[in-house]
Amino acid sequence: MSADSPRSQSCTCIAPINIAVIKYWGKSDEDQIIPLNDSISLTLDTDYMYTKTTATISTELTKDSIILNNEEASGDGVRFQNCLSEIRKLAASSKHASTVEKSKLKVAIVSQNNFPTKAGLASSASGYACLVFTLAQLFELESHKSELSALARRGSGSACRSLSGGFVQWFHESQPCVARPIAEAEHWPQLRCLVAVVSNTSKAVGSTEGMSRSVKTSKLLEYRIKHVVRDRVEEMKMAILQKDFVKFAELTMQDSNQFHAICLDTYPPLFYMNSTSQAIIQLVHRYNEIRQNIKVAYTFDAGPNAVLFMEEAELNRFASVFHAFFGSIPHESFFRGKIPDPVDSTKDVEALGPDKALKGQVQYTIVCHVGQGPKNIDPTG
Amino acid sequence: MSADSPRSQSCTCIAPINIAVIKYWGKSDEDQIIPLNDSISLTLDTDYMYTKTTATISTELTKDSIILNNEEASGDGVRFQNCLSEIRKLAASSKHASTVEKSKLKVAIVSQNNFPTKAGLASSASGYACLVFTLAQLFELESHKSELSALARRGSGSACRSLSGGFVQWFHESQPCVARPIAEAEHWPQLRCLVAVVSNTSKAVGSTEGMSRSVKTSKLLEYRIKHVVRDRVEEMKMAILQKDFVKFAELTMQDSNQFHAICLDTYPPLFYMNSTSQAIIQLVHRYNEIRQNIKVAYTFDAGPNAVLFMEEAELNRFASVFHAFFGSIPHESFFRGKIPDPVDSTKDVEALGPDKALKGQVQYTIVCHVGQGPKNIDPTG
Repeated sequence: MSADSPRSQSCTCIAPINIAVIKYWGKSDEDQIIPLNDSISLTLDTDYMYTKTTATISTELTKDSIILNNEEASGDGVRFQNCLSEIRKLAASSKHASTVEKSKLKVAIVSQNNFPTKAGLASSASGYACLVFTLAQLFELESHKSELSALARRGSGSACRSLSGGFVQWFHESQPCVARPIAEAEHWPQLRCLVAVVSNTSKAVGSTEGMSRSVKTSKLLEYRIKHVVRDRVEEMKMAILQKDFVKFAELTMQDSNQFHAICLDTYPPLFYMNSTSQAIIQLVHRYNEIRQNIKVAYTFDAGPNAVLFMEEAELNRFASVFHAFFGSIPHESFFRGKIPDPVDSTKDVEALGPDKALKGQVQYTIVCHVGQGPKNIDPTG
Repeated sequence: MSADSPRSQSCTCIAPINIAVIKYWGKSDEDQIIPLNDSISLTLDTDYMYTKTTATISTELTKDSIILNNEEASGDGVRFQNCLSEIRKLAASSKHASTVEKSKLKVAIVSQNNFPTKAGLASSASGYACLVFTLAQLFELESHKSELSALARRGSGSACRSLSGGFVQWFHESQPCVARPIAEAEHWPQLRCLVAVVSNTSKAVGSTEGMSRSVKTSKLLEYRIKHVVRDRVEEMKMAILQKDFVKFAELTMQDSNQFHAICLDTYPPLFYMNSTSQAIIQLVHRYNEIRQNIKVAYTFDAGPNAVLFMEEAELNRFASVFHAFFGSIPHESFFRGKIPDPVDSTKDVEALGPDKALKGQVQYTIVCHVGQGPKNIDPTG
């Protein structure tokens, strides 16, 4: 308990977002949020994008409350209550009297994403991961790794992947259904990631409704689950362990495309990518052609924003080309995070065939790398 | 032989385009053009869209030649030569001496599409159907129906479907591989079709290359062939025979979406639809929602243009809504063919939520119906 009041205690943590390279789409259990297939993701560093959450317990609080991005959110949201009540159960059954005591107190949550909202960057993964991690710190439940992963999953499926750093696999058949790292963040230090924020965000059907519609109507989804993903997960794991960029890139692009193919085979169809997303895909394939090897990969979640992967050696060259095609603001404003060195891209742009209509279609791009899981940022944490 | 010269003869015919409602995508034999699955199409009337071909044989011709849309085309194109040499073989083996005699003469072909070129409206189906039909008339081979269907197929796969009027099935396992009508054009006279020419045509990968790439790389295509299309063909046949518009519409939309899903699952992916195509799809689903029934269906081939089906009772109402959303020229210029009666669409447009960004995204719309197969248009034909 903090010095100012022995009857109240608070804890502040940050948690990262994660990007799936083998996609999760479709649940076998809507309430428990059990996915139909394994997925693999990369946890992105928290240098620029993270959720920050402060949780406070106090004898003076009379009800649970949550403030999300400066707005009071309804504390009785089903998923929030699920998370909170499950974590309280866990605390109540603890061997430690202090944890049992804390489980009886009301909780005040203040949570904020430091990355731009309304940019279509899924924040529920980092949000729920941060909520669960922060409460676990507060209740001294850090050792219950499997239970915490399962708890985050109940908030937002892919949140369980944000509880670990590095390269993470979410196992659909494990008991409980949890995510665990395949490799630590340090395993592949050359890997770089550009998160391209596409300006013309289309109004998408939410993921929960979208995947439920796919499960009901897409004839191709069943095949993907039964005959495609299992092998791909194994191949992807191998590509990551061997740091085989070409294989990693190929599988990443193919799985992103197949996920969006399933969305299109859904009835009525789901469109998450827009014409800018298509243009980015076409540029990446053309770029790889002129480089005579696969140097860059794309992946798209349930929105138009692109996430691009490459190795460090390619970053400056590709970033300059990408800026030349899609940026309408200066290089140093177009990139956020660790700004790549600008390179003369005239020859590449000529070889790729410039298309001026694309200018300004990407608002800005966040440069990041594979990073660690959530952490307590309290001075004493 | 015509009166002016006993040693030369010519014949002029027209042939319709056709629109697949169960799509053909993928060949089991590239040279023979044997499709991987059955497909079903509707032959559209020739009131507005057709290919017109004149074929001339003469002792005075020293080589075969072909003029396509006023431009001399290479007469030694593989597919053109395939068609011509096969039809000559057929003629040479005829019981009729006159046909055998004609088979030895050189041929001059003049072919023209009366519908706008560069509008992304596939013209190879009507083109090759017209070529084969016209030569068959000239060589008196009309009775060889199966052989002619197989011949047209060698020119352009879906051309075999344009040799018949009405509702047509192309059988991938028949020997020879041919198309035959399921029902005549008169079977379902209420059916109407709007061909919407989308202005921003994207540069697509040609169908031949595209489908070959899909066969090699799409994991989902194999499943479609083995487990989806067979049942859908039977359901579609039943929907057509029973004139069940709701079922027909649902299957048409689902199959169009699945075809484009396969294109997206192809590596590198194929994008044939653009943002206007997506907007048309979304408008149709929303329109069906406010009409509380499926009143309109869409289908898209390997390009951004939409083909919309509805029954006559819905035509004026939907056409006016469609014009309000996508047209930037007056109603009577926006529609070609039999112009629908304009209806006050204010309430519908309000219910659908107007989106002014769509204005002008469709250049114009051709109104048509299910029609007859090719015909000889010579005065004596």
